Order: sequence, then structure tokens, then C-alpha cells
Amino acid sequence: MSEALRNDRFLRALRREPVDMTPIWIMRQAGRYLPEYRDTRQRAGDFLSLCKNPDLACEVTLQPLERFDLDAAILFSDILTIPDAMGLGLRFAAGEGPYFERPVRTAADIQALTPPDVETELGYVLEAVRVIRAALAGRVPLIGFSGSPWTLATYMVEGGGSREFSRIKAMMYDAPELVERLVDVLAESVSRYLAGQIRAGAQAVMIFDTWGGVLTPRAYRRFSLEPMARIVRELAASPETAQTPVILFTKGGGSWLEAIADTGCAAVGLDWTVDLREARRRVGDRVALQGNMDPAVLYAAPERIRAEVDELLAQYGPGTGHVFNLGHGIHQSIDPEHVRVLVDAVHELSRPYHQAD
Amino acid sequence: MSEALRNDRFLRALRREPVDMTPIWIMRQAGRYLPEYRDTRQRAGDFLSLCKNPDLACEVTLQPLERFDLDAAILFSDILTIPDAMGLGLRFAAGEGPYFERPVRTAADIQALTPPDVETELGYVLEAVRVIRAALAGRVPLIGFSGSPWTLATYMVEGGGSREFSRIKAMMYDAPELVERLVDVLAESVSRYLAGQIRAGAQAVMIFDTWGGVLTPRAYRRFSLEPMARIVRELAASPETAQTPVILFTKGGGSWLEAIADTGCAAVGLDWTVDLREARRRVGDRVALQGNMDPAVLYAAPERIRAEVDELLAQYGPGTGHVFNLGHGIHQSIDPEHVRVLVDAVHELSRPYHQAD
Repeated sequence: MSEALRNDRFLRALRREPVDMTPIWIMRQAGRYLPEYRDTRQRAGDFLSLCKNPDLACEVTLQPLERFDLDAAILFSDILTIPDAMGLGLRFAAGEGPYFERPVRTAADIQALTPPDVETELGYVLEAVRVIRAALAGRVPLIGFSGSPWTLATYMVEGGGSREFSRIKAMMYDAPELVERLVDVLAESVSRYLAGQIRAGAQAVMIFDTWGGVLTPRAYRRFSLEPMARIVRELAASPETAQTPVILFTKGGGSWLEAIADTGCAAVGLDWTVDLREARRRVGDRVALQGNMDPAVLYAAPERIRAEVDELLAQYGPGTGHVFNLGHGIHQSIDPEHVRVLVDAVHELSRPYHQAD
Repeated sequence: MSEALRNDRFLRALRREPVDMTPIWIMRQAGRYLPEYRDTRQRAGDFLSLCKNPDLACEVTLQPLERFDLDAAILFSDILTIPDAMGLGLRFAAGEGPYFERPVRTAADIQALTPPDVETELGYVLEAVRVIRAALAGRVPLIGFSGSPWTLATYMVEGGGSREFSRIKAMMYDAPELVERLVDVLAESVSRYLAGQIRAGAQAVMIFDTWGGVLTPRAYRRFSLEPMARIVRELAASPETAQTPVILFTKGGGSWLEAIADTGCAAVGLDWTVDLREARRRVGDRVALQGNMDPAVLYAAPERIRAEVDELLAQYGPGTGHVFNLGHGIHQSIDPEHVRVLVDAVHELSRPYHQAD
């Protein structure tokens, strides 16, 4: 666990310490845009088998690092492992995304939920963290992650992906205390899950709040932000997890940036609808910022990609505290060579912004 | 055209003049949640036949007014009438939403586009406006509308609905001058189309920018806001349209509220991710605000709906300049009786906020 990191740019930027270049990693960097990922996935049989096999999860986690000069690895897993471990029966329909065989629909369903035992019921994830951490051997830090309580709750109540979130919102407006109980048990679960990942070797953790942006400001604070803040507080309260930086990312949460920064997290993830200059002005030196290139820029020609990188680096400006990333996961049909252009451009073009550090 | 309006609450609120109660109308108020709408639609055969038949369009426009005490009618039509009139061949796949037989994909496709002749190629819409206006006979004002240039452009290039907008964004990042030419010809088309609707009898017009919120702040200004601002300027420059209020609504555009208000529009539509108190503080008395209840509140019990109305009215506070609405179109499975509760609650609970006017 204590091998020296050969590249600690990512962790330094999260702590807002000087760096030589802006670090970069990419959401869903181990994914279907890589032919070698598609090969491994085919060997695994299906997506869940891939997630549940620590050696294969390690293999795909490392694939993008073999190709690109990335500054962090992220655990390969699914955001819905917790509800699966709670007994909802996670399945993937071909081309349709995830669904649950036993969604949560009633007060009794919610009352029956308890946090899964992380060491046993989510042991395959912790084992993947250990295997990946050993395989990385100090090359770059490893990021662990979880879905946010609200985001997990949406899938659990809707039974799968949704556009209108009518079931969970009906419950939220009609019986808010039920949704509160649901996100409460999920906050406890996520807190234990991330602590387990940190004990297994994760050097930073990120909470993906994919669906916080569909809420009103009041509902966001109550049902999404407060449960995430509780997780941050619980991790900060334990000596074995207190030093590990937490990144919070609410897609569509640009309006609530200050409130997210006030949770005590180390960094806030930003989608591309926010101007980085403005975001930095708003949070000051409370947190680092991670993001926020529109993933669609990667469809463009290399010189356009470099120009967009240049613009984003100029928006953030000189100094540390910026982790470059996309504002959402990379699209499936992106040419991997364009990813190389992006990664190299971030490193090359960011050097002048760090000379004063 | 010059019959006296018996209920001008909506137009007064748009002009920020005193009103007795906060006016309300509902996006997609003539729609599938109403059994009588489903009947008319079945008689029409399909959605496009319904849009293209002025008498049936009038029938469905008036249906929600027969049930509820709404303060405005909105023209029943589709947002994709302009590209259809440009020759793209609008079709609706059962349960799949709209698509174009001949999407716009190349520079040559875009160069070939010209604004449709509104009086002939969109004459069926103008005729619907005339028929509806006559049928209303001064009961409430009639709102005309169009999709925004950017929103129309996304459908024209993607060929239909989209989640990632990969085709139009690839074009936007690779060849921005092409997308600029496309939104330019659309701005000219929308401007003529709305002027035609105003001449035919529309007493306010609204531009629906459904997809402006998927852009970066810079791209939003260039490809969505500036074309909308041009339409506002052109309507303001002609004596026959200058007095008609324009409402701009960018879904997910809460961060850009001040910039939208600066276009010279009369009102800004808001989705539910924005706090009305904060929004009012940000725009001051430059514009009226329209919105912004989460449509999912209508799944809840009547007393919960009333409580949410109360909260939103308190957020806006005393005085005029607020048009109550949902933050997006009403969902299909809403109980019409819940809509009655909403409309009546807005009128009843808003009276105290207007006593000082």
C-alpha cells in the first residue's frame, strides 16, 4: 500500500499543491471506444460478469493507461453495485441499459432495505481495488467511486433508466419522508462502501450524482446534496479515510456549486455548461475543480481539440487546483487517437500555467 | 382582431402591470393527458394531420379552456413545422417521436436551405391562428410559438431526437461557420414565422429553446442566444409586431438568465431547477418571469400540489411580473383533476400577493 507514487500530479492538484502540468483523466476512460475493451468484454460474456471478475476488471482498468499518458486510473465497476447487493437483482438488457428485477416501490420495500455488508456482499469490488492497486504498482493513483444516494434511489424506484423520473418524484412530492429514509440508508451504504474501497487501496474517491440536476433547488439540497455531505462528513471523521480526497460530481449542478463546495469535499466535478473561470471565482480556494470539456469536442479534428483545451486552460488560468476531464463520460464512437491528442494537449499546453507555482 | 379581451391578466403580467391574481397557463395544456384530446387525435388519424387541420387544431387548443380557468390559450402545432416546410419531410414514428426523411448533413445541404414562404408553405399554421382567435372571441389571449433556431437545427442535423447530439456537435466544433449559417437561416425563418402568426392574431409569442441547455456557455451565446436575440430585435423593429410580447424559454438555461433577459424579450421562461426568488433578484424589473413548477408535482395529492403552489408564489413574492406555469410540458399520465387543483390554487393563493398593486 505504501509504495511511492511515481506520478502524484492528480492527488497534488486535488490538494491544490503545485504541479508541473495539469493532470488529466477521463470519465469512462476504460470503455467501449477502446477495441481492447470490447475484446475483454466479449471474453467476459456480459457487463456484469466483467464487473464481478477482479482480474478482468483490472485488465480493462489498465487498458487506457497503456495507450495514453493519463494521470489517474479509475476502478472499473458499475454505479449500481450497492442496490444489486441489497437484493434488487441488477440486469442489463441488450442495448437498453440497466434494470432491476425487484424495484423498490412501496413503504414496506423501503423499510426492508439495510446497508449491504461491504466486505462480503461487495467483496468482489474490494478485491478488484486490491488487484488493480497492486498492478498499478505506484504508476498513478487509483480512484474509487460510487453512485450518489439520490442517483441510486432513482434507479431503484424507477426500476431502470428514466426520462421523467415520474415514480420517484411522485413518491418525493407525496411522501417525502419515504424518499428521505431511502437516501438515508443509501448514504450509510455509500459511506461504508467508499470506506471499504479506501481500505482496499483507493487513493481518492468520487461520487457520481448523475441525476441530481433533475431536482428543484430545495429538493436537491434535501435529497441529493445532504446525503452526499453526510458521506463526506463520515469519511472525514474516521482516521483511516480522513486523508483521502472526495470528489463530488452533480451533472447539471452548476447552479449549486457553492453549496457543493461547502460540504467539505476536496473537489467538485463540473459538466461543460459551466464556465471554468466563473466556477473558480465562485468557489475560491475552498476546493479543486475537475472538468469540464464537452465530450463531443472529441468528434472534431485534432487542431480543434487542441484549441478547445487551450481555451479551457485559459479559463481556469494560472495555478494549481484543476484536474482536467470531460464534463461527462466519453462517447462510445470516439476515435482513440483523438483521446491521445487531448491528453497530450492538456500536458503540453498547461505547462506555462504552472511555472509560477 | 380588436375585440376587447375579457381576461388580460396574462398580457398585463408580461408587461409587469398590476393584476388581481397571478395568471397561469400550462405548457402542452392541449395534450394527451386529456381524454378529449386523445379522441380528437384519433379522429384526425395522426399527429401531423391534426396540426395541419386548422379546425381540429382549434378544437384541441380550446379543450383545456373548457375544463380549467386558464389565462391563455396556446396555438396547437408542432415545433418542427419550419424544417418540414423547408422540405426535410417531417414524420412521426409510433412511440418514437419525430424524425426527418431528409436530414441536413453536409455543407451543400445547409447552403441549399432558404426560409420558407410563411404565407403559403406555413399557411395552415396562420389559418389555425385565425380560426382559434375567432373562436376565442376575446376570452383569453392566444400565444403563438416556434422552436428556437438551435433547437430546430439539432433535429435537422440529427434527423430526430437525440441524447448526445453527436452529429450537430461534431459539426459545431469542426465547422462552426456551417452551424452559424444554419442557425442564421433559421433565425430569419422563425422571425418571419412569428411575424406571420402575430399578423394572423397571436397576442404573444414564445420561443422554445428545448436544447440550448446542452451547450457550453460560449456555444450557447453564439448558436442559440444570439439567433434568438436577432428574432427579438427584428420583431421589435417592425410596427406591426413591436407591441407583441416575446417569451424566451431555454430549458436548462438557468445560469444564463441575465443574458436572456438582456435580449429585449418581455419574459423569460424558467425550468424548475431555478429558485424563483433568486431569479427575480437576478433580472430585477427588466423582464417578467414564467414558470416554474416541476411537472412531477402533479402526480402528488391535491394538498401537496397546493403546498407547492404556495411555496412558488412565496418565492416570487408580492407584485406583478409572474406568469405561473410548469417548468416543462405536462406529462401524459397526469390526472386532469390535479390540473384543476393547480389552476384554482394559483388563482386563490396568489390574491394576497397582488393587493398592494
